[in-house]
Amino acid sequence: MSAAAPAAKPTSAAKSDAAAAFARGLEGVIGGQTSVCSIEQDKLIYRGYEIHDLAAHATFEQVAFLLLEGHKPSADELARFKKEIVAERAIPASVAKFLTDAAPQLKAGTAVPMDVLRTAVGLLGHQDPDCQDNSAAANLRKSKRLLARIPTIIGHMQNAIDGRAFVQPDAALDHAANLLYMMTGRRPTTEEARVIDVSLILYAEHEFNASTFTCRVIAGTLSDLHGAVCGGIAALKGPLHGGANEMAMEMLKEIFASVGEAGIGTPKVDAWMEQAFASKRKLMGFGHRVYKNGDHRAGILHTLGRNLASRLGGTPGGLAATRWFDLGEQVQKIMLTKKNIHPNVDFPCGMTYFVMGIPVPQYTPIFVAARITGWCAHIMEQHADNRLIRPLSIYTGPAERRWNG
Amino acid sequence: MSAAAPAAKPTSAAKSDAAAAFARGLEGVIGGQTSVCSIEQDKLIYRGYEIHDLAAHATFEQVAFLLLEGHKPSADELARFKKEIVAERAIPASVAKFLTDAAPQLKAGTAVPMDVLRTAVGLLGHQDPDCQDNSAAANLRKSKRLLARIPTIIGHMQNAIDGRAFVQPDAALDHAANLLYMMTGRRPTTEEARVIDVSLILYAEHEFNASTFTCRVIAGTLSDLHGAVCGGIAALKGPLHGGANEMAMEMLKEIFASVGEAGIGTPKVDAWMEQAFASKRKLMGFGHRVYKNGDHRAGILHTLGRNLASRLGGTPGGLAATRWFDLGEQVQKIMLTKKNIHPNVDFPCGMTYFVMGIPVPQYTPIFVAARITGWCAHIMEQHADNRLIRPLSIYTGPAERRWNG
Repeated sequence: MSAAAPAAKPTSAAKSDAAAAFARGLEGVIGGQTSVCSIEQDKLIYRGYEIHDLAAHATFEQVAFLLLEGHKPSADELARFKKEIVAERAIPASVAKFLTDAAPQLKAGTAVPMDVLRTAVGLLGHQDPDCQDNSAAANLRKSKRLLARIPTIIGHMQNAIDGRAFVQPDAALDHAANLLYMMTGRRPTTEEARVIDVSLILYAEHEFNASTFTCRVIAGTLSDLHGAVCGGIAALKGPLHGGANEMAMEMLKEIFASVGEAGIGTPKVDAWMEQAFASKRKLMGFGHRVYKNGDHRAGILHTLGRNLASRLGGTPGGLAATRWFDLGEQVQKIMLTKKNIHPNVDFPCGMTYFVMGIPVPQYTPIFVAARITGWCAHIMEQHADNRLIRPLSIYTGPAERRWNG
Repeated sequence: MSAAAPAAKPTSAAKSDAAAAFARGLEGVIGGQTSVCSIEQDKLIYRGYEIHDLAAHATFEQVAFLLLEGHKPSADELARFKKEIVAERAIPASVAKFLTDAAPQLKAGTAVPMDVLRTAVGLLGHQDPDCQDNSAAANLRKSKRLLARIPTIIGHMQNAIDGRAFVQPDAALDHAANLLYMMTGRRPTTEEARVIDVSLILYAEHEFNASTFTCRVIAGTLSDLHGAVCGGIAALKGPLHGGANEMAMEMLKEIFASVGEAGIGTPKVDAWMEQAFASKRKLMGFGHRVYKNGDHRAGILHTLGRNLASRLGGTPGGLAATRWFDLGEQVQKIMLTKKNIHPNVDFPCGMTYFVMGIPVPQYTPIFVAARITGWCAHIMEQHADNRLIRPLSIYTGPAERRWNG
């Protein structure tokens, strides 16, 4: 079209103005303001603190306080916060019963843990005395309760799947260690506990990602926090979002099944990848809507996971823990060389959780156990200064016609 | 700032470009494309059919087919569709038991019907053999099942609240009539059935409203239909969205309690409204993000509701049905005269459902019984041509600082 050609007749002035900014998936579009998190190409910052700094020096409980309360906790504040969270870990018997009843559905595969976690959060809401109260104080109380109870839900769910009696929360264990303990019945080593703690720090918050944005759209109607979190869980489940950590590991398992241990480090892996590229298969755990030069979090977790693996033995199926990282690194290198795409945090996360013996379908629920802090911070921010989030759309359907034509 | 002043240093090029288009609540921003619905200032169109035409000539089942399948059904298609929906109305015993168990929480007010409906939809998903399948065929099957079962959930929930045995679906009744029958145990008159049928047509679809947008954001991660619908229900609950039909009626009840029947039509109502304006109270059922000159749907439903009221007797509390419309019309006139704000569809809906004896907390669930068609149409459209919906944000938090500073 030449510059002088007349513009197509706009359907309405508002739509015409906005159409100029139309970007599929709202890519590059500002969806709002936040004081919780900033993402730059070279930095990820939670309320002013850079992610490498937090991963090196903070605990998940400190980061959770930072996100929910808005500032770094003093020693006293942290002690009180940890005590509150530990005191709130138990879940009502009715919710525990639901998790037991859901085990057959989880085994049959009609439900996956993310679905059951979403419903369990809803059930907690139904009996939460603050459920219908959107005030800042009530929202903070609800946020802390969900933070405390989501690991118990995940643990009990896995216990029910495994046919194990519920492993009750251990008040002597910190948040991350207790989560791993409840899921497996095994108290993690100090190093394992720290690795999962750091993974929770890395997963805690990430600006206007799809699940957080979902939470904000829901909260923007002045709906309640539990409902918004249910929406967040639904969004995080998707393989283009949190579900990628499970898919990344499933892909590695598939490559291993295809090439065998002897194939790791050989061109057999390249051949597998070439075939995946040729079939236009979407490979999860790589690339990111925002990060184009690599995800800061991936390197942090990869190093921790690789180091941990070097001190662990074999994994289910018999492959040594370090060999999964050998395979993962080869895959990463091929992706970077052939496609110029970097791994995101979900890629090392999959391997790291796998060598720790965590069942793959619980990787995304563990992501929830971390991201609940970021979601709740955003929901509280949305409620505190609200504006209904309601975009327009471009109509591509049929022209007007008569019903009885 | 003068035009020659240097621009603030952008934090990143992408954000700087997008910031120019920043609009709170994405107002006026295009969030995507759709062939399902078009909203203009003077027209609301579902797949090419204008809403007055549909309200006058179509049934809700026809509109549901139109939205889900994409075209007006032939007589054969409609007969088959209605048969399918009737056959799918029953809900599993476990979901019915959940509704019974939720009654105390509903009575205590820690849960409201929208919360319980959301969880019930989740529970249906856990045992749906298609739950994890996002294919067009599976999505359509799931959409029809939810369409069929949501009225049963609402009905059973109300039966449980009222301590009545579950009223089972009546295969001889159409969708809207059966919904009213299951909730109340009373078979509606032909006129009542048609009024609620038209209300479902009016509520069925509305482009990129907040709940539909929520569904699309969730579906955009390639998460599943049930999860997306749970998010939609959570969003619709909010008083700035679907919850407004309940709030509108609660406001009328409050005015009536204040002015008494003798006050209707007198300056007492003006005084009540002036006080509400002075206290900056948000009055629900008025105004709309998109419609600035009035909501097409409001007039259609007001006329039907007013006519129905003229043939009904008293309402709970003793006021004649027509007097609620007298009061509502007075309130509308004051809003238009003093604030230049028109009623939206939720305003006549509140009065219409009230004079039919529907419990107020079920108004928004009934909205779900209609909007499930629009949501599912959008989820299917999103899955069919997907792009992750992930905007950016403007950071307003503290500057970078060190954790151990």
